[in-house]
Amino acid sequence: MSEDFYPVILAGGRGTRFWPLSRKKRAKQLLALDGKQTMIQQTVARLLPASRGKQFWIITNDDLRPEILRQLPKLAKDQVLAEPMGRNTAPAIGLAAFILQRTNPDAVIGLFPSDHVIANPDRFREVLADGIQIAASGENIVVLGVQPTRPETGYGYIEAGSLGTADALRVRRFTEKPNAETAAEFLKAGNYYWNSGMFLWSARTLANALTEHLPKTAAVLEKIAADYGTNKFAGTFRRLYPKCENISIDYAVLEPRSAKGEEESNIFCLRADFGWNDLGSWTALHEHHATRQSPADGNLISGQGIFTLNASSNYVHAPGKFVAVVGVNDIVVVETDDALLVTTRENAQDVGKVVKYLDEKKMGKLV
Amino acid sequence: MSEDFYPVILAGGRGTRFWPLSRKKRAKQLLALDGKQTMIQQTVARLLPASRGKQFWIITNDDLRPEILRQLPKLAKDQVLAEPMGRNTAPAIGLAAFILQRTNPDAVIGLFPSDHVIANPDRFREVLADGIQIAASGENIVVLGVQPTRPETGYGYIEAGSLGTADALRVRRFTEKPNAETAAEFLKAGNYYWNSGMFLWSARTLANALTEHLPKTAAVLEKIAADYGTNKFAGTFRRLYPKCENISIDYAVLEPRSAKGEEESNIFCLRADFGWNDLGSWTALHEHHATRQSPADGNLISGQGIFTLNASSNYVHAPGKFVAVVGVNDIVVVETDDALLVTTRENAQDVGKVVKYLDEKKMGKLV
Repeated sequence: MSEDFYPVILAGGRGTRFWPLSRKKRAKQLLALDGKQTMIQQTVARLLPASRGKQFWIITNDDLRPEILRQLPKLAKDQVLAEPMGRNTAPAIGLAAFILQRTNPDAVIGLFPSDHVIANPDRFREVLADGIQIAASGENIVVLGVQPTRPETGYGYIEAGSLGTADALRVRRFTEKPNAETAAEFLKAGNYYWNSGMFLWSARTLANALTEHLPKTAAVLEKIAADYGTNKFAGTFRRLYPKCENISIDYAVLEPRSAKGEEESNIFCLRADFGWNDLGSWTALHEHHATRQSPADGNLISGQGIFTLNASSNYVHAPGKFVAVVGVNDIVVVETDDALLVTTRENAQDVGKVVKYLDEKKMGKLV
Repeated sequence: MSEDFYPVILAGGRGTRFWPLSRKKRAKQLLALDGKQTMIQQTVARLLPASRGKQFWIITNDDLRPEILRQLPKLAKDQVLAEPMGRNTAPAIGLAAFILQRTNPDAVIGLFPSDHVIANPDRFREVLADGIQIAASGENIVVLGVQPTRPETGYGYIEAGSLGTADALRVRRFTEKPNAETAAEFLKAGNYYWNSGMFLWSARTLANALTEHLPKTAAVLEKIAADYGTNKFAGTFRRLYPKCENISIDYAVLEPRSAKGEEESNIFCLRADFGWNDLGSWTALHEHHATRQSPADGNLISGQGIFTLNASSNYVHAPGKFVAVVGVNDIVVVETDDALLVTTRENAQDVGKVVKYLDEKKMGKLV
């Protein structure tokens, strides 16, 4: 695979929907929600064979950086950048683009979330190799799109058009999160894909796109990049990065670019048929494990001993405790040393609101 | 009130429906489910003014006796008898009858559960005083009956007949726990009362009734009573008590006696209009507290900080933890150091089955 592929892993999110397990200094990507490795360890392990060597960055914040370095002891410290202030995805990936543009503008940059599950890493790397090849040619942008299996309202969608190069479909447009009715139409239409948040471009393509669509931020990033590799970098980064606009790459570049039309925009969608799951909530985690373990009653209970009676489709996390579940369905209970969450499979997406409340009340120990 | 009133408090039950809070050595009656005092402390405090001095016994078992003595330090040790083997209510109350018959056959014995709530202790003692008076006359038996407020299928019912002496109604018959249809009929009929398990008789009446209806057990109890007050008592009690039949006083005496007919049987029902609640389950406890505290959303949550969102009528006990309840109704969650119970208000009566399972699996630490 290309020597000139640079993955950028975004690991600054909090994953508040996994409270009380996720905390400010132990965000979702630092939890082992699926197997023994944490989500970020899995992400790095998945990308290492594709990036050969250590050509990649993790972008996070000061709260999470120490634990990331602890979980990934083989990383060099300067591979894990802490944003002085969260600025969403456009500045994060843009910085990588402007740094590489100076020395290696043909290098392909990939943007990857750090907290998703991919069931088939080999297939992931096959798709990635295809994507890198497409991104390396001309001004192409590649997005990985997931075939929808339900009318999900929590994701953005990609509307695909004609077949472009190789297996890639030309992207007709990016859409915001739809309402339920629209999501159902998308599902039925068959040419809509979930936006996985994984993108590929050459450094040049991305830097140019940012200069075109986000000139102020591009200028700031260019200044920061100019100090990369010098002892001024840390200070410049801290000082200037907060001046970047707080905006996603989707909104800043992909949506306006796709407005140029299917042929002009050069955005391609590769189908992410490698068992992708963003584990967006306790419910998604429950379903992910239930699919793999297929318990007859749909219960997934971690505890020191378990008793169930007339109970189905519950998710209970209480390691170290004997757990009894009696006459209850579709409930989510998660316990930690200092907190207890009780919710339902249907309402688990609202768990982030607990964290919002705790933030507001300045109950810092609990977030 | 009568110098010759001897309450007998039954405190040998396990109260398994309050698992995981209730345990073999910390049964329901030893928990402070309502206020700061434990149930048995409340029971004793309620009866002390009626019994003047220390004319009463607590009957329990070896598992619970140490904690009972600890919770009631003013009791003499010989007031707390540990049955060598649980034999249900007939032998327990019968032993008191045969002991008192030897020295004070006119004394009135009262049988009281140790784990019920009584909202109005003053009114309780008024009813009690009436009952003692009725029980002291002739061969009368007094039962305290609770006006039903719902078609409860978990209690036995008393069918009342004509007005007897004072406020007391003659008892027509005792019924087993009814099915839902019958319970609804009882509620509608208006002359059915819940059997509270509180009874009053003279020692002579009770001893005679046992001799008539349960002759084998009566003979055993008479032998044990003969050694009371001597240093042989403890040994005789341990050796002979297990020979008693394992039977309730309702089934052994009250049901056959009531079969003699309303006039012949001399069983009277006094209305227990003093805010009785047996707190039979987590749901009953929830309702008891909700009635008194009237939270707008019906949630009763004990924790170190609480957040609720779209949640109503939940009962959560997790002292020391921050508790978040999101989008869930009618759920019961109880947490202890070593166990977590998740159930519903509707199914909390099945919690005893958890303890049955733990007993069967010999998971002794958890029961």
